[in-house]
Amino acid sequence: MVTFLAGGTGTPKLLHGADDVFPAAETPVVANTGDDVEIAGHLVCPDLDTQLFADAGELDTETWWGIDGDSTATHDALLAFADTAGLDGGPRYLPPAAQTAGRDIARWRRFSGVAEFMLIGDRDRAVHLTRTGLLDEGHTLTEAIDALRDALGVDRRIFPMSDDPVATIVHTPDGPQHFQAWWVAHGGEPAVESVEFRGAASAEPTPEVLDALDDPVVVGPSNPVTSLGPMLAMDAFRDALARTPVVAVSPFVGDRVFSGPAGKLMIATGREPSTAGVAATYEFADAFVLDEADATELDRPVVRTDTTLDSAADSERVARAAADALAEVT
Amino acid sequence: MVTFLAGGTGTPKLLHGADDVFPAAETPVVANTGDDVEIAGHLVCPDLDTQLFADAGELDTETWWGIDGDSTATHDALLAFADTAGLDGGPRYLPPAAQTAGRDIARWRRFSGVAEFMLIGDRDRAVHLTRTGLLDEGHTLTEAIDALRDALGVDRRIFPMSDDPVATIVHTPDGPQHFQAWWVAHGGEPAVESVEFRGAASAEPTPEVLDALDDPVVVGPSNPVTSLGPMLAMDAFRDALARTPVVAVSPFVGDRVFSGPAGKLMIATGREPSTAGVAATYEFADAFVLDEADATELDRPVVRTDTTLDSAADSERVARAAADALAEVT
Repeated sequence: MVTFLAGGTGTPKLLHGADDVFPAAETPVVANTGDDVEIAGHLVCPDLDTQLFADAGELDTETWWGIDGDSTATHDALLAFADTAGLDGGPRYLPPAAQTAGRDIARWRRFSGVAEFMLIGDRDRAVHLTRTGLLDEGHTLTEAIDALRDALGVDRRIFPMSDDPVATIVHTPDGPQHFQAWWVAHGGEPAVESVEFRGAASAEPTPEVLDALDDPVVVGPSNPVTSLGPMLAMDAFRDALARTPVVAVSPFVGDRVFSGPAGKLMIATGREPSTAGVAATYEFADAFVLDEADATELDRPVVRTDTTLDSAADSERVARAAADALAEVT
Repeated sequence: MVTFLAGGTGTPKLLHGADDVFPAAETPVVANTGDDVEIAGHLVCPDLDTQLFADAGELDTETWWGIDGDSTATHDALLAFADTAGLDGGPRYLPPAAQTAGRDIARWRRFSGVAEFMLIGDRDRAVHLTRTGLLDEGHTLTEAIDALRDALGVDRRIFPMSDDPVATIVHTPDGPQHFQAWWVAHGGEPAVESVEFRGAASAEPTPEVLDALDDPVVVGPSNPVTSLGPMLAMDAFRDALARTPVVAVSPFVGDRVFSGPAGKLMIATGREPSTAGVAATYEFADAFVLDEADATELDRPVVRTDTTLDSAADSERVARAAADALAEVT
């Protein structure tokens, strides 16, 4: 068994077509929950859901989020109602007292449903409502995701990194905001001064996660700061990674990033926005998969391949490189 | 100005086509909130919404609830997910601790979103989410309904009876359950032993409601127990009715009820299931509108007409009878 760590689209893309190398039923995924938000009263878990939908064969693989062909009747009406009633759009972050009221897991990331700032499809919404219902009934997030695997017919075991709240907050010259507000609503503006994983100091990885981390681990080509950062902010998670063989796929080619805000966030947190910076951040990684055009010299074993992930054939090729790298360190 | 009290479908039906007698912009409605529920994390207010949708021209007037022609993508997916995952349907009332956690207004009526037991359409859901968002932002229910009037283009002022939580709980041999679970999910079974308006002792009508009750009042042909009962359970509401002229339209023709669970609930609460029982319950009513086939003798002025409400012409006729009855006591 090999366990993958996932945040954003890197790992779902890497596994989407890699079943011959890493069979889904034997390859659990541990997903970041730092960029989860509660919006309109339901808990939205982007990183968990992208993996769930990918394995269910329902993912929109144009955008790599949401459900393919989903309708948006409720979302459209939310925007129209707000517009007609003169209610401002944009992320409507709830007042401070509300941030720690209600569901514990939604702490520090609660947004109003008025003019819903993330596009949530109608079937997608039923996923969030089922998850939130199970949480309200007293189940853990781990249990809720397990029920959603059943609901969606997913073989792969998919685990939230923790059942405790951890919220990724970016601090900017305009004040703090939740990562999703900064990234989805504000397009990665303004500049980031620092990144906080609120709650991480008292959060714990679940027993299921610690068990999965006893096996060798592959870190997909994710953003080291906001995709992996929330996991690494938990001491027990970092300790578990230190004890097991780990291969990381760089999200950079040298100092060029494939997509997303990784470069900007690496700089904001005092890191070099490059493969070298990733390697310095992942001190627990025992080997790396780098792009064949990436000339970075590292102090650990490296397997090079074309790390583009645009097709199932790409996924299988990069997955084989990860398996080769693992073979060097296990 | 004349103020109407509404619960269930009686008053919306009575006003739907009665604009020549009671112009919408000059005829506020005070609606029951005892049968509101929080389901799937959003506050659903059936009596307020039926009036809102009727005045917006969006009401499904076959069923007299929900939005005409609404799609049900999220609801359908909620049922399918629960079925596939082996999660029981039916009302999933949250555990006791959850009933008093979260939003104050949702106390004692919180249901899981799993296998959502009420049919909520996709556009309808956006109404609930906008309302709940405004509540989470710190607005009162009164303010939230006012914003929804703007969103839906409704001239009529529509007021919740209170901004405090009042939950209609029916006690049965199988234990207590919220009115909506008993009525919508269990079809009015099992037998009712008593009806409780939880929270009413510490709930207050809003200033807007007390102001509206300074004008003459018409009580539509609603269920006296669960539609009017929550209002009457507030002392200040009952006192206000005692001070102003009130006309009540009987929901019975003698001892025959038009629709709904009124008869059963009247018996369960020790009342006669008839116009005479309604008159005894409404000791604050100064005059009545009865069906022309209703031979009940009352100790207060009576105007008789055909009280059937199946068309706009019916509504106008019954509204004129209510205006005539008011004229006798003002």
